[in-house]
Amino acid sequence: MGVIGPVLVLGAGGFIGMNLCRRLSAAGIGFRGVGRPGGYAPPTATDWTAATIDRNTDFGSYLDGCSQAVYLLGSSTPAASEADVGADIERNLLPAIAFLEAARRSGLRQIVFLSSGGAIYGPDVATPTDEDAPTDPISSYGVVKLATEKYLSSYAHRGGPTALSLRVSNPFGPYQSAAKGQGVIAAFASRMLAGEPITLFGDGSVRRDFIFIDDVTEAILAALRHEREGGVFNIGSGASRSILDVVRDLEAVLGVKANIVFQPAREIDVPVSQLSIGRAKQVLGWQPHIGWQAGLAKTAAWLRGNESGNG
Amino acid sequence: MGVIGPVLVLGAGGFIGMNLCRRLSAAGIGFRGVGRPGGYAPPTATDWTAATIDRNTDFGSYLDGCSQAVYLLGSSTPAASEADVGADIERNLLPAIAFLEAARRSGLRQIVFLSSGGAIYGPDVATPTDEDAPTDPISSYGVVKLATEKYLSSYAHRGGPTALSLRVSNPFGPYQSAAKGQGVIAAFASRMLAGEPITLFGDGSVRRDFIFIDDVTEAILAALRHEREGGVFNIGSGASRSILDVVRDLEAVLGVKANIVFQPAREIDVPVSQLSIGRAKQVLGWQPHIGWQAGLAKTAAWLRGNESGNG
Repeated sequence: MGVIGPVLVLGAGGFIGMNLCRRLSAAGIGFRGVGRPGGYAPPTATDWTAATIDRNTDFGSYLDGCSQAVYLLGSSTPAASEADVGADIERNLLPAIAFLEAARRSGLRQIVFLSSGGAIYGPDVATPTDEDAPTDPISSYGVVKLATEKYLSSYAHRGGPTALSLRVSNPFGPYQSAAKGQGVIAAFASRMLAGEPITLFGDGSVRRDFIFIDDVTEAILAALRHEREGGVFNIGSGASRSILDVVRDLEAVLGVKANIVFQPAREIDVPVSQLSIGRAKQVLGWQPHIGWQAGLAKTAAWLRGNESGNG
Repeated sequence: MGVIGPVLVLGAGGFIGMNLCRRLSAAGIGFRGVGRPGGYAPPTATDWTAATIDRNTDFGSYLDGCSQAVYLLGSSTPAASEADVGADIERNLLPAIAFLEAARRSGLRQIVFLSSGGAIYGPDVATPTDEDAPTDPISSYGVVKLATEKYLSSYAHRGGPTALSLRVSNPFGPYQSAAKGQGVIAAFASRMLAGEPITLFGDGSVRRDFIFIDDVTEAILAALRHEREGGVFNIGSGASRSILDVVRDLEAVLGVKANIVFQPAREIDVPVSQLSIGRAKQVLGWQPHIGWQAGLAKTAAWLRGNESGNG
C-alpha cells in the first residue's frame, strides 16, 4: 500500500473522470485533470486543463510532476466504433501510444487504464467471465481496448510504467451522459423522465453487469495503491440483470411508465456479460459495496436534480 | 476440401509471397499477385500488379474476380517496429482495416492471414506453445499482428469473410532477403558467404522454431482448402534449435567458418520460441515434411546461385 499521487487524470471531464476527480479531491490526493473543453466543471481549486487530446498532444507537459496516471480517454462506444474503424484506431489507439511514449520518457511510475469488461471477451465466453478467458471482441471498440492493454504491458516489459488495466463492466451513476449514448441507464432514465420512448434492441433479454460508479472509483484508487506489479483486473458487480428488468426497476424508482420501442437485435451486442471479480478481490483488496437498488436510487436523485443540465 | 481460387495474393513480391505464387502457378491455381515495386520478378504469365499498398489503396479493383485472399503484407520486423510505434500501426494495421472493409463489400469468401508464431505469445509462455496460450507480445510487431487477427474475426462475426490466421514460426528458404533483415538464416548465410562477420545478440542460446518455406506454402494451401470455418493455427516445425547451433550447421553446409561478433541480448527477443502444431495437423490436415538439414541444403544451394541478386 503506497502513497497515491500526484495523479494525472486524462479524460477528467467525462463520466468516470468527474467522479474520480471528486473522490480524489475529497481524499486530499493531489491530481491534475485534463478534460475535453465543454465537459463537466472541475472541482474547485483543481489543477485543471481543458484540452482536446489527440496523437499530437504534448503529454510531457501534463506528466510533469505526476508519478501516476489514470487513462480514461476513449471517445467511442461499441456501436459508434464500427462506423469508421480506421478513424476509431486513429482517435483511440494512436493517442494511447503517444501517451505511452511520453510516459516512458518522463519516468512515470504507473498507469491505470480503464479497459472494457463488456467488449473484450466476445460473445461465446463462459459467464461469469474471468480474466484468463479468450478475448474475441466483436467491435473495434473492443479490439482497440485490447490492443491498448497489450501495448501497456509491452511498454512495461521494456522499461515503461507499471500498467494496470481495469476491465470495467457497465458503470452507471451521476455524471453519465445520456446525450453521448454512454450507458443504457442514463439514456433510458433521461428519456423516461422527459416522457420520450426508449429503444430496446432484441427482446430485452440481453444481460449486463451494472456497477455503480462509486465502486469503480474505489477500484481505481485500489489500483493506484497497488503499484508493485501490473496486470488485468475485472471490475464488475458480481451479478448481471436483463435490460428489461433494468427498465422495470427504473420505472419503480422514477415513478414513471416506460414507453418501449423494440428494434431488431444488434450483432454488436453480446448476449450476456457478467464478470468474475475474484482477482480484484484477492490482489487489489477491492470489492463492490453499493447494491443495485441503492445505486439506482442515487442515480435517479442526481438525474432529477440535473434534468436540464445533463449533457 | 473445396476448389481453391481465384486467389488474391497481397504482398506477392516478398519472401513468402514469391514462394506461394510459384507454388500456385505450379499447381495451376488461378491467382492475382500484388507486390511492391522492386520486389522479386513474378512467375511468367501471371496476373501481376506492382503497387505500394497503404490505407488508401483501392483494394476493390484487386479483389474483383477473386474469391479468396492471402494477406502477406507487413513491412516491419519486431525490432524495426519499435522505432516508431505510431507509424507501425499506420503502416501495418490501417491497411489491413481498409482491406477488410473492401473484402466485406466485395463478398470475398475467405482470407488467410500470415500472423506471427514468434512475436504473439510473449516471453513467459510454456513451450511448445499452443494457440490457447496467453498472448502478451513484447513488440509492436506482435501487437499489430494480434490486433489484425482480432479484427479479422470480428469482421467474420459480422458478415465478413471467413478468416484463418496462420501463426508461422521462423520461416527460411529461397527468396528470403538478407537485406531486409527478415530472418537470421538468410542474414547469416549471406554474410558468411561474403566473408563478413555476423552479429549474435546475447550468448546465442536463444532458441527459435525454424520452418522451411515449402512447408509454409503447403500450410497456406491447406488453409485455402479449409473454407468452412475460421480460426488461429500455429505453423511451425515441431522443434526448436539455438541460434548458435544454426550458425554451426550453416558453417557445415556452406563450408565456411563464421566470424561471430557477440552483442548484448535485446529486450525484444523472447528466449525460446517453439510452437505446438497439433491443431493444424488435426484441423487442416497439414504437417511439415522438410527436415532441417534438407531445408538448409536447399537454402544454401539457392543462395549460392543468387549471391549477387539477393536483395
